[in-house]
Amino acid sequence: MSEGERAEELTELVENNDLTGIRLWLAEHRPYEIADELSRMAGSQAIIPFRLLDKDRELEVFEELDPGQQQAILLGLRDTAFHEILEEMDPDDRARLIGEAPAKIATRALAGLSPAERRMTAALLGYPEDSVGRYMTPETVVLHRDLTVGRALEIVRAKGADAETIYTLPVVTDGRRLVGTVTLGDLVVNDARLLKDVVDVLAPRVRATHQAEDAARLMQEANLVSLPVVDSEDRFVGLLTFDDALELIEAADSEDMARQSGASPVGDHYVSVGVLRLVGARSVWLMLLIVAATLTVNVMQVYETTLEEVTALAVFVPMLIGTGGNVGAQSATAIVRALAVGEVRVRDLPRVIWKEARVGLLLGLMLAGLALAIGALLVGFQVAVVVAVSVIAICTWAAIIGSSMPLLARKVGVDPAVVSSPMVATLVDATGLIIYFSVARLILHI
Amino acid sequence: MSEGERAEELTELVENNDLTGIRLWLAEHRPYEIADELSRMAGSQAIIPFRLLDKDRELEVFEELDPGQQQAILLGLRDTAFHEILEEMDPDDRARLIGEAPAKIATRALAGLSPAERRMTAALLGYPEDSVGRYMTPETVVLHRDLTVGRALEIVRAKGADAETIYTLPVVTDGRRLVGTVTLGDLVVNDARLLKDVVDVLAPRVRATHQAEDAARLMQEANLVSLPVVDSEDRFVGLLTFDDALELIEAADSEDMARQSGASPVGDHYVSVGVLRLVGARSVWLMLLIVAATLTVNVMQVYETTLEEVTALAVFVPMLIGTGGNVGAQSATAIVRALAVGEVRVRDLPRVIWKEARVGLLLGLMLAGLALAIGALLVGFQVAVVVAVSVIAICTWAAIIGSSMPLLARKVGVDPAVVSSPMVATLVDATGLIIYFSVARLILHI
Repeated sequence: MSEGERAEELTELVENNDLTGIRLWLAEHRPYEIADELSRMAGSQAIIPFRLLDKDRELEVFEELDPGQQQAILLGLRDTAFHEILEEMDPDDRARLIGEAPAKIATRALAGLSPAERRMTAALLGYPEDSVGRYMTPETVVLHRDLTVGRALEIVRAKGADAETIYTLPVVTDGRRLVGTVTLGDLVVNDARLLKDVVDVLAPRVRATHQAEDAARLMQEANLVSLPVVDSEDRFVGLLTFDDALELIEAADSEDMARQSGASPVGDHYVSVGVLRLVGARSVWLMLLIVAATLTVNVMQVYETTLEEVTALAVFVPMLIGTGGNVGAQSATAIVRALAVGEVRVRDLPRVIWKEARVGLLLGLMLAGLALAIGALLVGFQVAVVVAVSVIAICTWAAIIGSSMPLLARKVGVDPAVVSSPMVATLVDATGLIIYFSVARLILHI
Repeated sequence: MSEGERAEELTELVENNDLTGIRLWLAEHRPYEIADELSRMAGSQAIIPFRLLDKDRELEVFEELDPGQQQAILLGLRDTAFHEILEEMDPDDRARLIGEAPAKIATRALAGLSPAERRMTAALLGYPEDSVGRYMTPETVVLHRDLTVGRALEIVRAKGADAETIYTLPVVTDGRRLVGTVTLGDLVVNDARLLKDVVDVLAPRVRATHQAEDAARLMQEANLVSLPVVDSEDRFVGLLTFDDALELIEAADSEDMARQSGASPVGDHYVSVGVLRLVGARSVWLMLLIVAATLTVNVMQVYETTLEEVTALAVFVPMLIGTGGNVGAQSATAIVRALAVGEVRVRDLPRVIWKEARVGLLLGLMLAGLALAIGALLVGFQVAVVVAVSVIAICTWAAIIGSSMPLLARKVGVDPAVVSSPMVATLVDATGLIIYFSVARLILHI
């Protein structure tokens, strides 16, 4: 674990205020490795090694940090350094930082920018949060369709150094209307004389107001290194690049996972997030769910006489509730994911429910066998039959609930991931108990 | 929903055997869109539109399909078409297809390859599954360090058409030992005369036997469009490209999500996966968990006399069990994700447990307030106090269990994602009941 040792080292060096040691450590590591270690420190600590970075690496490290850590670092910098970093950041990274920062930082940041950079930032900030417009880079080399390939290459050579990417080059006609794209590789390798003969007019494009996550998944499906972004009149406004796509997909998946467990997503690095923020992110759903669980208390009370008559019934309540919750969680998770990656659409609802109902039934039959054995062994055959029959019904029901709820959420425009496993489990709990006690009354004639 | 209409259309066209209509539909759509629709059909149906594709788009569509669908399509093709597709696939895609296919297809596929392609495929198949070697492309343009920039560009121009990517160019010294990389952009834009002046010697590299998922996350962290891959003697063997990285991250996250819900990952498109395969993927954990839930039955039996004395205690069992499971699932999910994206490491164990214990305690205190109100309202003050005190203890305990188990799994070399929410919930169920009944005996003096 050389990685582990390295990390201890930097924290130790900072704690011992060993400036020479820190300088040496920084020289030996890559910007993303440095950012990774800084993310694990408190902001007040991270500023020490950050200030010791060479000017040219400072920016690279800064751009790799989480928004929270970026703000902490900025607060620790003097005016000159503060403005230098912001002026030189990629416009899309800067817009996101300013968009998320408290007003104090945002105002100071915007005020210090040069007019050109401020214009660019303001334009990006005009797009809705989570839209492609916030993530695209306007710093590209735009080529006119009527150019020759040779002239196009000359333009790339002349302007390429200022662009964030030159792998994909947007090709436009008058009024910056997007015709298509050409890759740098096509320009270099191709023998064609005219640009219009090599431009890919079928290259996918998205509107700047489009959901950023969807655009990233499109890039993955279509194997695109950059995706051209246009405004409502099909004018080119920027490129979404593969590194933003990778980041968007990872962040979206992190959010979905958190939501699936009934927590709000916390964007920042786990180690640097405080206890209170974690509590805040997790408490809302837990409180709603414990209130919803009052239903189970009600159901149990309704059947209290049944429980008193056959006390053996009570001992299987946790097992039945657990099993129903597990089956429901599996179905919900599968459908939430299939929706996220585009494998399932809302109109598939009947087909999905039919499939999941059969899956639930088969799982129920298998589990009923086990439940029958466990019940017969521990309590007696009659109660075991009740438990087994209930398992079949509960599993089928849980699979139907678990699979239909995310689809219904999407249908009414809610993020399907908020249909969390705990939410499905809580719903299945109360209804599962009703199934259990009804089956018991039928079979045991009570 | 233009996307929805489009999809109905192709399925309908195929069902009506409307060949002209299918040809028209295919001409109007992009390869990845066609692949997306084919993935939603049975293999026997998908073969019809696939056969109608132009030769040059056939391959593009084929490479976008899931392994399962690729196999179904291959089985429906005649020998010539079968071998043509395999011969022209990217070597890494081909190796993965052959590696996963049943022996019948694999043998037929290898037998038909040209010697050069067969050698390349065999080399990739020599690397372990899920390793970078299976995903990298050997088809690149390799440059010797001693070249001039001009000569390097000439080589790229001459050989670039056969390479899968020329965005990142590996630079080697004698014996193909990797010096670093240079981007096509650097070659085109730079004024330097010698290649060794522009090569990035600090560019990250990985071994071919390295975990593919880790390599993909490294590319995301370091913003790399391609990552050079070397053998044990630092000789260049291939490039991992951004499209594979995007696919790897999406697949890894899908797997983690499935595992988190207690299911094995299925890999293929949800719509094309049959009921029995879904049952197979989900049944193992469910059966283990229902057997583990026998513990809860035992605990309930041990405290049966307590339950008989105060029957009101039983009605809160579902609520307590549910709450403990929810808190444990939140902690487990947070830590599994933090481990996956590299924010938390094994040696953070004590720090993580300390943090989660405090989170659990605070959540417990908040929920206890609600539980006290619900309990007092529905049953009575004494039992409500028992429930509230239990909630505090159970939440703290659940957070500790939920956070420590994934870390312990990683420590002993098991994928932390197998510590699923249902597994944590089941563990917390039994122990939570013991806590509950112990608290009840203490407070109610029974």
